[in-house]
Amino acid sequence: MSTDTTHRSTTHGPDTHRNGVDTATLFATLDAVKAAPAAARFQFRAHNTWQSGTHSRSTISDFFGVGEERVHEREFVFDADHPAVLVGQDRGPTPVEMLLHALAACLTAGIANIASARGVTLTSVRSTVTGDIDLNGILGLQPVRNGYSGVGVRFVVEGDAPEDVLRGIVEQSRSRSAVFDVMTTGVPVDIEVEVA
Amino acid sequence: MSTDTTHRSTTHGPDTHRNGVDTATLFATLDAVKAAPAAARFQFRAHNTWQSGTHSRSTISDFFGVGEERVHEREFVFDADHPAVLVGQDRGPTPVEMLLHALAACLTAGIANIASARGVTLTSVRSTVTGDIDLNGILGLQPVRNGYSGVGVRFVVEGDAPEDVLRGIVEQSRSRSAVFDVMTTGVPVDIEVEVA
Repeated sequence: MSTDTTHRSTTHGPDTHRNGVDTATLFATLDAVKAAPAAARFQFRAHNTWQSGTHSRSTISDFFGVGEERVHEREFVFDADHPAVLVGQDRGPTPVEMLLHALAACLTAGIANIASARGVTLTSVRSTVTGDIDLNGILGLQPVRNGYSGVGVRFVVEGDAPEDVLRGIVEQSRSRSAVFDVMTTGVPVDIEVEVA
Repeated sequence: MSTDTTHRSTTHGPDTHRNGVDTATLFATLDAVKAAPAAARFQFRAHNTWQSGTHSRSTISDFFGVGEERVHEREFVFDADHPAVLVGQDRGPTPVEMLLHALAACLTAGIANIASARGVTLTSVRSTVTGDIDLNGILGLQPVRNGYSGVGVRFVVEGDAPEDVLRGIVEQSRSRSAVFDVMTTGVPVDIEVEVA
C-alpha cells in the first residue's frame, strides 16, 4: 500500500473520531465485552455528606468495572440544595433537577455514539428537559405522588443526514439509555441506616 | 413581655434554625400552601448542549413555582461524560452517577427538614449510594435491562435522639422523597425531536 493510498484512506475513509467518538475503540470494546460479558458489570457510587439545612454535597470518584476497582481521572464534587422559595439557601440545584440533567446527558451521549457508529456527523445536539411536580405530595398536603408527574425532553438535532436518519438515532439512543430506563421503569432501592 | 423573657425564649425555646433549617419559615410555607395549593405546582428544567463525544453540559437556572417564573440565585453548570474505559474522556461523571447523587441529596434534605420539625439536632448525616448495572444491556449484547438492576443507600446518621427516632426520621424522608419516588416507580417521559 502506497503512502498516497494510506493518506487517502485517512482523509476520505471512515473517520474513526467522527463527533469526537473513537469508533474504532468503541467497536473494539463491544467485541471485547462480547467475548467476556462479565466485563460489563459495573457499580457506580456517590458519597454524600450533609452540610446544613437542605444543603448536601456528593463526591463521585470510585467505581467498579471491567473486573476491577477504578477511579475517575478526578473527583467530581456536586452540591444540592433547595432554593429560598423552598426554604433552602440555593447553594446548588435541587435534587430533582439533577435527574433532568442526568436524562439529557445520557440520551445525548447515546446520540453521539450511535451517530458515529452510523457514519453521521453531528453539528449540534441541544435539549431542554422539563419536569412537572406538585409539591403538595412531598409536603404531605394532598394525595398526589411525591415525584414528577411527567417529564418532557425536547431535542434539536443537526447533522449531515436526512431527518428520518437523525430521528432514528435519537430513537435508538432512547431505546438503549440507562437513565431513561431507570426514570421510566424504576429500580429497587434498598436503604440501610446505621446510627452512629 | 420583659427582655429577660424574650431572651429566655430565644435561648431555651424552640430553635427556629435547628440544623440550619428555618423551621418557622418551613411551617409558614406549609400553611401558605395549605391555603393556596396551586402554589406547590413547580416545573424544573435543565438545558443541555452536546460538547463532543459522550461529553455534554447542562445549565440549570430557570424554573416555575409559586405561580411565577423564577431563577436560581446563580446558574448551575454540570458536565457529564463517560470514563475512558467506556470510550469517553472523563470530563464529568457518567449520567447514571448523577442519579445516585440526586437520590442521596433528596433523602438528606428531607432528613434535615424532618429532624428539625421534630426538634432533633443532627450532628452528621453521611451516605454512600451504589448502583449496580450490567452494561450488556445498553451495549445491546445481552437481554438485560439498560439501567441499574438495583440501588443501595447506606446512611450513617448521628444526632441528639434515640436510635428509633433517628431511624424514623430517615423512614419519613424516604416516604416523602421526590427522587426516591421517581427512581423506584418511574415517570412518563415524552421525547420530542426537532431536526434543525
